[in-house]
Amino acid sequence: MPSLSFRIVLVEPLFSGNVGSVARVMKNFDFSELVLLNPCELDMPARVMAVHAYDIIENARIEFSFEDAIKGSNMVVGLTGLPGTTDKEHMRIPVYTPQRLKEKLTGKSGVVSLIFGREDHGLMNEELQMCDIIVNIPTSPTYPSMNLSHAVAVVLYELGDIKTGEIHLAEHFDLELLYEHIDDVLFDIEYKEHKEDKTKLMLRRILGRAELTGREVQTLRGVLRRIQWKLNKLKESRINLL
Amino acid sequence: MPSLSFRIVLVEPLFSGNVGSVARVMKNFDFSELVLLNPCELDMPARVMAVHAYDIIENARIEFSFEDAIKGSNMVVGLTGLPGTTDKEHMRIPVYTPQRLKEKLTGKSGVVSLIFGREDHGLMNEELQMCDIIVNIPTSPTYPSMNLSHAVAVVLYELGDIKTGEIHLAEHFDLELLYEHIDDVLFDIEYKEHKEDKTKLMLRRILGRAELTGREVQTLRGVLRRIQWKLNKLKESRINLL
Repeated sequence: MPSLSFRIVLVEPLFSGNVGSVARVMKNFDFSELVLLNPCELDMPARVMAVHAYDIIENARIEFSFEDAIKGSNMVVGLTGLPGTTDKEHMRIPVYTPQRLKEKLTGKSGVVSLIFGREDHGLMNEELQMCDIIVNIPTSPTYPSMNLSHAVAVVLYELGDIKTGEIHLAEHFDLELLYEHIDDVLFDIEYKEHKEDKTKLMLRRILGRAELTGREVQTLRGVLRRIQWKLNKLKESRINLL
Repeated sequence: MPSLSFRIVLVEPLFSGNVGSVARVMKNFDFSELVLLNPCELDMPARVMAVHAYDIIENARIEFSFEDAIKGSNMVVGLTGLPGTTDKEHMRIPVYTPQRLKEKLTGKSGVVSLIFGREDHGLMNEELQMCDIIVNIPTSPTYPSMNLSHAVAVVLYELGDIKTGEIHLAEHFDLELLYEHIDDVLFDIEYKEHKEDKTKLMLRRILGRAELTGREVQTLRGVLRRIQWKLNKLKESRINLL
């Protein structure tokens, strides 16, 4: 029976009390998979703030690279407190509210990693680039910066009663292969270098929010392979003509 | 221009760090009115956790009785982690989710007090009795007890984008007069004593969730006055007959 499961990934949390608070609210809303990327020392405050949820920290997976932290995900969702403001910023837009994320994931199955950044600097651009979807909690412009565990509380509250379904999301790994394949094609068609990075990211954002299934990813890669085949064929025939 | 305003009331908070965390999330979601009922000492942790929202604590109203804390409210909403389970428990049911509360308040105007209880024991029954509506955040049966500031975060996130309107809620004070009036009538009709408390509370819950306007309260009191008038009239005519 396919279903939707969520992993909460904390990137380089600085204060162990926050890790404890996150564990507590995870258990409040029935989430159990915690991944810690390069965490601070998990000392007494983690235990104090977790109260009856310290088992979540004991069972947490500890990783040392972003790639390892998201391994096995079908969808990687990055939380940011700084949404983009113009449609030129593909890094941070389109940005979804937690509610829109819930709507997108309703009826799906697969492993969704929810990535929460550092208490002081959030997620870095290189990390946001590896996310399929960017989510921002709508907050006051006067003071947008939320406490880490408050942000987790709001997102898990929203996702707590989501209805899962049968539509199985593609593996994030296969998506990465698709993105690399796109990069190759852009190279093959001599896409303008000064536009390349923005376009890559835009395509990533478009495909990321399209909730592709594995079959769709394979079909898209088939299209790309055919483009490359045709490019090569034309190149060869041109060589033959010379 | 009538509108909806919210007060966050913390009843006897035990840890000043939690008061600070609550202030921060209030500012994140653009709420500013904080009422503290018999708070702990507001020492360093309050300042540390509030970060850029310490002004909310500095401007907080400090009260020493529940009645004073809710003074001036049109609706008093009590948050509880322990919803009732049978419809015999009028104290804690019907219980609303934050989402249902939002639906109920949409289009209304007035002052709504959101009452959050102690970190260890929540709200006492006498306090819940004075609330018009009871709200519970749906949590896991395995670990239902949320951190105070997480509960505030979830409720304010839900209410953050509420649409206010023109329908002005009755003053809580007038509601209290209505409730007292009902008590008087129950006395006048010699309502069975062993049922009295439950029935009073049930009527309170029914009227509390009906979002009465001031005019409706006055009309209901008119009906009650007429009942009393008729009772007296019959009593007098009976005396005259004797």
